[in-house]
Amino acid sequence: MVSKESTVLGEMYKKWVSAMADNPDMTLEETREMFEHWGDVTGEPGGVDYIEVVANGVPCMWAKPKGSDESRALLCTHGGGYQVGSMYSHRKLFGHIAKAVGCPALIVDYRRSPESLHPGPVNDCVDAYAWILDQGIKPEHVAFVGDSAGGALAITTILGARDRGLPLPAASMPLSPWTDMEITGETVTTNEEKDHFVKRAVIEHMSATFLGEDGDRKDPLATPLYADLSGLPPFYVQVGGDETLLDDSRRFVAKVEEAGGEVKFDIYPGMQHVFPFLAGTAPEGDQAIADQAAWVKPKLGL
Amino acid sequence: MVSKESTVLGEMYKKWVSAMADNPDMTLEETREMFEHWGDVTGEPGGVDYIEVVANGVPCMWAKPKGSDESRALLCTHGGGYQVGSMYSHRKLFGHIAKAVGCPALIVDYRRSPESLHPGPVNDCVDAYAWILDQGIKPEHVAFVGDSAGGALAITTILGARDRGLPLPAASMPLSPWTDMEITGETVTTNEEKDHFVKRAVIEHMSATFLGEDGDRKDPLATPLYADLSGLPPFYVQVGGDETLLDDSRRFVAKVEEAGGEVKFDIYPGMQHVFPFLAGTAPEGDQAIADQAAWVKPKLGL
Repeated sequence: MVSKESTVLGEMYKKWVSAMADNPDMTLEETREMFEHWGDVTGEPGGVDYIEVVANGVPCMWAKPKGSDESRALLCTHGGGYQVGSMYSHRKLFGHIAKAVGCPALIVDYRRSPESLHPGPVNDCVDAYAWILDQGIKPEHVAFVGDSAGGALAITTILGARDRGLPLPAASMPLSPWTDMEITGETVTTNEEKDHFVKRAVIEHMSATFLGEDGDRKDPLATPLYADLSGLPPFYVQVGGDETLLDDSRRFVAKVEEAGGEVKFDIYPGMQHVFPFLAGTAPEGDQAIADQAAWVKPKLGL
Repeated sequence: MVSKESTVLGEMYKKWVSAMADNPDMTLEETREMFEHWGDVTGEPGGVDYIEVVANGVPCMWAKPKGSDESRALLCTHGGGYQVGSMYSHRKLFGHIAKAVGCPALIVDYRRSPESLHPGPVNDCVDAYAWILDQGIKPEHVAFVGDSAGGALAITTILGARDRGLPLPAASMPLSPWTDMEITGETVTTNEEKDHFVKRAVIEHMSATFLGEDGDRKDPLATPLYADLSGLPPFYVQVGGDETLLDDSRRFVAKVEEAGGEVKFDIYPGMQHVFPFLAGTAPEGDQAIADQAAWVKPKLGL
């Protein structure tokens, strides 16, 4: 039984999908403008300061809860198919998570596609992570968290950091991660009706745009289902039960387990894509974030 | 001819008015929650940091544009009939103004009615102004700006500061100010159809709530049309042509002129209540803010 308050997220998604259907010539700028309203469904966390910084050349925003432990940090990677969404659209979402965890969150405004094709976004996020370490914050005091495409980045940024020889963070929390650029999950079909947003056509378009014309959909930095997942930090994956991307989470979790890794996995019944956006406005959003905090705080020594 | 983009503000107001009509038992909390979405129509200014502070006991938020002149400040008083609206709902609006002017803006989260009846909100804003002066910022380097009830506060905070013997600020910019608790403006009737939000019933209720049962609607700190307006700093009043509160601006401007004061007055044809909320999304919002900046910067020596 989902809360009445939680339905606003699905309603917003329905409006977006109709707006896109009604206007097939919607420009990239118009689409981005529309997605900037993602956070409109989120309550204001309050008691959190927002300070823009440039981290190794990458625009970012600190969300700093009052009185939080600045020796710890979250690296936050926003969703939007690598093409839309921003540190602004996700300000409140990550502000809530930072406040619940009790440490500042660096929201990465990575360069998006098509201007920056794969692996541009991953590289930007690794650069931002390296910058956090340069601030003197220890890797064991950093956790990653991201949603949708940013949920993939919460995984692939670890892989990118490993490739560069950087020490790995303490933990990662992919929310509704989009882990499969080949779009082969069964739930893409079976949940097509229930998921009011992530329709096959939408992610087919986003996958092609992100990877470019000759892009390899099996590239582990784009589709981490193909990555060597051994030796990675523990993961906590959250996903909504009504999502087309449910299988993206399920398969990723299975791969981590196969690789001998630690992973916690929660499916929230009846929930839409990235339902923690409902933080401050619906109990399911608040619960998801409370669950994240309970899991990650001990990993960060908080 | 109004822009197509500008119509979203009136559409949002229509939705609010229907929601209130459909739900006459809407609680104060629900009403406040609804009004927290005021800023959803505003574009993100970008390049502005937001830092919460407590100013003489009053919760406030600095909106600090990157590279702005911190020897100057705006004191920002948000609208919402003294009962709704907050430093969060108006964050982007005042962020745009701060950025255009080129100095930080202190957004006052004054205690609202009915918890804090008149003159509680005025006193909180005077306290916040005194705090700005305590920071070493000179009064001639401070300007006030506010909208709707906060537009009245951009006037009455000056009166309150005068009563306390504080030096007065350099200038003030009331936007769509609500200057008449008696609600006697002719446009309250003649623009009732065109104004999609500020209907007589709404402000009658707000006036009664703000002043309390035995409140004096002629109190100059609530209805500055009755105030001694001589010797005040220059004013710049902006209002939409379709507003029921148009006469609140007109009469205030006439009173300032009668008192020998300096006042600039602009009526923006076809615009709704506090249309500068459209900053970043419709040309009329951007124009209003550009006009504010052009007028106030020389007053602040910027």
